[in-house]
Amino acid sequence: METNPCINPVKVGFSIPPRVSRKSKIDDTIVNISGVRIGGSEIVMIAGPCAVESEEQLFETARSVKAGGAKILRGGAFKPRSSPYNFQGMGEEGLKLLSIISKETGLPVVTEVMDTRQVELVASYADMIQIGSRNMQNYPLLKEAGMCKKPVLLKRGMMATIEEFLQAAEYILNAGNDQVILCERGIRTFETSTRNTLDLSAVPMLKQLTHLPVIIDPSHGTGIRWMVPSMSKAAVAVGTDGLIIEVHYKPEKALCDGHQSLSLDEFSKLMIDLKKVAKAIDREI
Amino acid sequence: METNPCINPVKVGFSIPPRVSRKSKIDDTIVNISGVRIGGSEIVMIAGPCAVESEEQLFETARSVKAGGAKILRGGAFKPRSSPYNFQGMGEEGLKLLSIISKETGLPVVTEVMDTRQVELVASYADMIQIGSRNMQNYPLLKEAGMCKKPVLLKRGMMATIEEFLQAAEYILNAGNDQVILCERGIRTFETSTRNTLDLSAVPMLKQLTHLPVIIDPSHGTGIRWMVPSMSKAAVAVGTDGLIIEVHYKPEKALCDGHQSLSLDEFSKLMIDLKKVAKAIDREI
Amino acid sequence: METNPCINPVKVGFSIPPRVSRKSKIDDTIVNISGVRIGGSEIVMIAGPCAVESEEQLFETARSVKAGGAKILRGGAFKPRSSPYNFQGMGEEGLKLLSIISKETGLPVVTEVMDTRQVELVASYADMIQIGSRNMQNYPLLKEAGMCKKPVLLKRGMMATIEEFLQAAEYILNAGNDQVILCERGIRTFETSTRNTLDLSAVPMLKQLTHLPVIIDPSHGTGIRWMVPSMSKAAVAVGTDGLIIEVHYKPEKALCDGHQSLSLDEFSKLMIDLKKVAKAIDREI
Amino acid sequence: METNPCINPVKVGFSIPPRVSRKSKIDDTIVNISGVRIGGSEIVMIAGPCAVESEEQLFETARSVKAGGAKILRGGAFKPRSSPYNFQGMGEEGLKLLSIISKETGLPVVTEVMDTRQVELVASYADMIQIGSRNMQNYPLLKEAGMCKKPVLLKRGMMATIEEFLQAAEYILNAGNDQVILCERGIRTFETSTRNTLDLSAVPMLKQLTHLPVIIDPSHGTGIRWMVPSMSKAAVAVGTDGLIIEVHYKPEKALCDGHQSLSLDEFSKLMIDLKKVAKAIDREI
Repeated sequence: METNPCINPVKVGFSIPPRVSRKSKIDDTIVNISGVRIGGSEIVMIAGPCAVESEEQLFETARSVKAGGAKILRGGAFKPRSSPYNFQGMGEEGLKLLSIISKETGLPVVTEVMDTRQVELVASYADMIQIGSRNMQNYPLLKEAGMCKKPVLLKRGMMATIEEFLQAAEYILNAGNDQVILCERGIRTFETSTRNTLDLSAVPMLKQLTHLPVIIDPSHGTGIRWMVPSMSKAAVAVGTDGLIIEVHYKPEKALCDGHQSLSLDEFSKLMIDLKKVAKAIDREI
Repeated sequence: METNPCINPVKVGFSIPPRVSRKSKIDDTIVNISGVRIGGSEIVMIAGPCAVESEEQLFETARSVKAGGAKILRGGAFKPRSSPYNFQGMGEEGLKLLSIISKETGLPVVTEVMDTRQVELVASYADMIQIGSRNMQNYPLLKEAGMCKKPVLLKRGMMATIEEFLQAAEYILNAGNDQVILCERGIRTFETSTRNTLDLSAVPMLKQLTHLPVIIDPSHGTGIRWMVPSMSKAAVAVGTDGLIIEVHYKPEKALCDGHQSLSLDEFSKLMIDLKKVAKAIDREI
Repeated sequence: METNPCINPVKVGFSIPPRVSRKSKIDDTIVNISGVRIGGSEIVMIAGPCAVESEEQLFETARSVKAGGAKILRGGAFKPRSSPYNFQGMGEEGLKLLSIISKETGLPVVTEVMDTRQVELVASYADMIQIGSRNMQNYPLLKEAGMCKKPVLLKRGMMATIEEFLQAAEYILNAGNDQVILCERGIRTFETSTRNTLDLSAVPMLKQLTHLPVIIDPSHGTGIRWMVPSMSKAAVAVGTDGLIIEVHYKPEKALCDGHQSLSLDEFSKLMIDLKKVAKAIDREI
Repeated sequence: METNPCINPVKVGFSIPPRVSRKSKIDDTIVNISGVRIGGSEIVMIAGPCAVESEEQLFETARSVKAGGAKILRGGAFKPRSSPYNFQGMGEEGLKLLSIISKETGLPVVTEVMDTRQVELVASYADMIQIGSRNMQNYPLLKEAGMCKKPVLLKRGMMATIEEFLQAAEYILNAGNDQVILCERGIRTFETSTRNTLDLSAVPMLKQLTHLPVIIDPSHGTGIRWMVPSMSKAAVAVGTDGLIIEVHYKPEKALCDGHQSLSLDEFSKLMIDLKKVAKAIDREI
C-alpha cells in the first residue's frame, strides 16, 4: 500500500524541545513559590476568586480558602475578557489588595500578566506570575517571563497541542527561568455541554515527556460549578501535582465566572474528599 | 449591543429525550447482564481482547482476567476496521469461542454487532451486545437492538455531542429495550498525541441528565497502553459505573490494537490500585 | 532535538489504499448515472428536497429543478434523524414517487440507504444509492453497496479524515463496484455559527489522491440557506465535479432541513451565476 | 420532552458587539492603506515572503509580485515561531528593508507586530500593522493597535469562533481605530492532511454580520503550495475583498514556510486565473 508520511509537511512527527524534556533532566522539577513546593509528593491547592473585585470579596475568600486548606491564593487583577465591555480587572489596585491579604494569611499569591510592559510590576507584587491560555503563544511575553525571577504558571492554550505547550514552556526556560508549572485548563472541542473539554490525559502525557510540574484547572476546564468536585477527584487520581480552583464568597454575585466558582463551603467540603483520593494513590494534599 | 442569551452554550439547555431523561426516572437504572449488575454501587470491570483471534488467545486471556477480578468478558468477533485489508474478525466462529469460555469461566460476554442482519445471531451467543462508535447513529441498528432481549452497550461516537449520544440511546429505549449502558470512549479533537481525547466530564454530565449507567473505555480513549492505568483511576474517581479494558495475553502479537492492550500482569496490578481509589469514594470494585 | 515520530502509534503517516489511489489509475474515473456522467469537464447539478414528503411536494420541486438545469434528482425516502421522534421518511412509498417523477422528467434519482437489508430494494428504484455521513464507516453497508450494480454516492463522515474517507471508498471498490462519487458535506469543528464547516480544500486534496469524482453539498455544509449560493460558487471555482443542493418548493413548510433549502426561484438564479464561474475556470455546467 | 429552542446553534443568535456590527453601519467600510483601498469592488492582492530574510530575497520578491499585480507587500520582521530555536525574524533591520523597497516599488507594506512595546516602532515603518492568529486575543496589543494611526490587519485565531473574532476587532474599534481588516487564515480541526482547515464560509458570514472588509490567507489556510491556487480561486468566488499570499523568490530555500510559498512564476500565473474568476462575479482584481 502507498504510504505518504509527508502529505502535510508541517504536522508530521513530534519534537520535545531540550530544556523541558524529561531526557535532559530525569528528576522531577520542584517549583518553589515563596516556600510552597509544587512537583513533589504533596498535591497543592491553589484557590481564590477569578478576579479581585473588592477588599471584602478578596479578603473573605482568601481567609476561608486558607482555613479550608489552600496553600496558594489566586486572583486576577488584569483580566483577559472576550468583550471590551466586560469588567477588565482592578489593575494595580487589585495587586495591592492581593499583597495585603497575602501577608495576613501567609498564602503566596499567583496572578495573571498579559502585557510585556507589566511583567515587572506584576512580579513585584506576586509570588508567581500566570500566563493565561490566550497568551500561551505570546512569545515576547514568554521571553519576558523567562527573564523575571518569579515562578511562572503557564496555562495551556485552548487550541494548543501538547507539543506546542511544551515549546511555549521552552521559551521561558530558554530565557533563563526553569521555575515553570504547566496547567491543563480544558481544550476547545466540538462538545458544547461544557465550556471546554478538560483533557486529563495531558497529566500522564506531560509527566512522561517533561520534568516540569503539571496542575489542573477544573473550573475553566468544565465551566460548571457542580462538575468541579468530581473532576478534581479525577485530576488527583490521574496524578496532578496541584489544582487551581475558582472560589468566591458569593458566586452568584461574581463579576466574572461566577457560574464556575465554588462557594466557601463547597471548597471546604471538596478538600475533605480530595484527601481521601490522594491517600488512595499514596500522595497527600 | 445585539445580544442573545443563548450564545453561551454552557447556559444553553439541552433537548433530552424523554425515556433516557433523569426527569422521567429519578432512580438509577441498573442493567443486569446475566447476573452482573451495572449501575449500582459496585464498579464493574469488563476486560478481554480487542478481537477474538484464536482459542488459545481468548481462553488464556479470559481465565486471567477472571482471576484478576473482571466480571464480564469482552472480545470482538465482527470487527469494524478502517481499512478493508485489516483483519475483519473471526465471525460466528469467534462467537462460539466466546460462548464456550463464558460457560467455563462464568463470565458473561459482550461483543459487537455491526449489521442489522446479525443482531439475532450475535444476541443468541452474547449476554450483552455492543454498538460501536462508528455505528452510534446507525438508526436501523439501534432500532434492531431495541427489539432484542439482551442488554446493549452503546459507545459514544467519536464526534458525537452528549445530546446526540442521549438521542441515540433513546432510539433503543423507544424500541422497547431499557437495558442500555452508555460508554464514553474518547472523542476526536485536534490533539494528536493520544488516539482520542478521553472526555471524563461525560460521566458527571451524563449521570446528571440520564438514569442510565455510564462506563469508560480508557483503551480506545487514549490508544496508549501506559496511559490506561492512570486514566482508569481517574475514571473511578470521577464516578464511572464500570470500565471496559483491552487485555491481551501477548499484546505485542495482537492482530488489533495491541499497542493499547494491557498484559495479563498489568491488568492484575491495575485491579489492586483501582480498589483503593474506589474505596476512597465509598464504592467498591 | 529529540524527535519522536511515534508517540501516538495510531496516527502517524498517511496511507492511500490501492484501488482508490490516483497511482493505480491516472485517468479520472467518470461515473455514469443512467446516462449522466460525473467526473468529466461538465459540472453536474443534483437537486431536490431533503426528504420526499408528498407527491405534490416532490413532483413540483422535481419539475422546477429540471427546468432550472439540474441533471439528477435527490430526495430521501429513508431518513437518518438524530431523534427517533422526528419524521423518519416515507419509506418505499417515497421510492415509488421518486421513480414516477424520474420517468416523467428524465432525471435519474439518487436516494439514501441506511440498512444492509434495504440495499436491494433501494437499488431497484434508484439510479444511484447514497451512503450518508453517519454511515460512512458502516462497513457491512459499504460492502453491500460494493456488491450492488448501481453507482454509489459516498458522503464524508462529519468526523472523518480524508484518509478514512478514502478507506471507506476502498471498501466499496474492493467489493467490486468502482462507480463511486465522493461528497464533501461539511465537517464538525468548534465553530457553531454554521451547522458544519464546509471543507472546500477536500476537493483539490481528493483530486490529487484519487481518480474518483468529488462533489460538494453546500446545504449540509453550511446549514444556512443564504450561504448556499456563495459557497456553491466557491465550490465550482475550487474544482468540484458537481453540487448536491437541497431545494424545496415551500422551504418554510419542509418537514426536514427547511432552513437550509433553496426555494425554486433561488435555485434557478443560482444556476445562472454558477455558469459564469464555471466558464471562468474553463468548465461548463 | 424537555426542549430548549436554543440547542441548535444555527438558530442561536450572536452577541455582535456594536462598533463592528453591520447594524451600526450598513455601508461597507473601506480601509485605505496608503492609497490602496480594501473593501470596495476591487479585490486586492497582498503578496510577499513569510519573513524578511535578506535584501536580495525581499527586493527580488517584491519587484516580482509588483510586476505580477500585487498591490500591497507583506513580509515579517518579527516572527512568532512555535519553537524558540527557529528563525525569529530580522527585527528592525527587516522593517528598514521593507521601507526601502516600499518606496522603490510604491507598494504599501503590511508587517506583523507581536509586542505592545513595538507597536509604535512597527507603525513608523509599516503602512498597515498585522496582528497574527496567536495574538488575536492579546487584548493589550489590540488596545495599542486601536490607539495607533495605521490600519490593522487582524487575523482570526486558529481556534476562534466568528463571535470571538468580532469581539477582538471591537477592541480595536473601541480604542479609536476603525481601519480594521479581518483575515480568515484557516482554523484548527481534527483533519491533518492540511495545516489548517480554511473556513471560506467565514467570508459570507462575516460580510453579513459586520461592515469591515474580509480577506483570505490561503497560504496558512492550507499549508501546501499546490493548494494555494485552487483555494484562492474559491476565495474570490465566495466574495473575499482580498488575498494575502506567501511568495518567495526561492521557496525551497526559505527560512520559514517555504512549503506553502508560491514561486514568482506561480504567483504571476495565479493572477491571470483570478482575474477571470473575479470577472465572473462582477468584480475586478
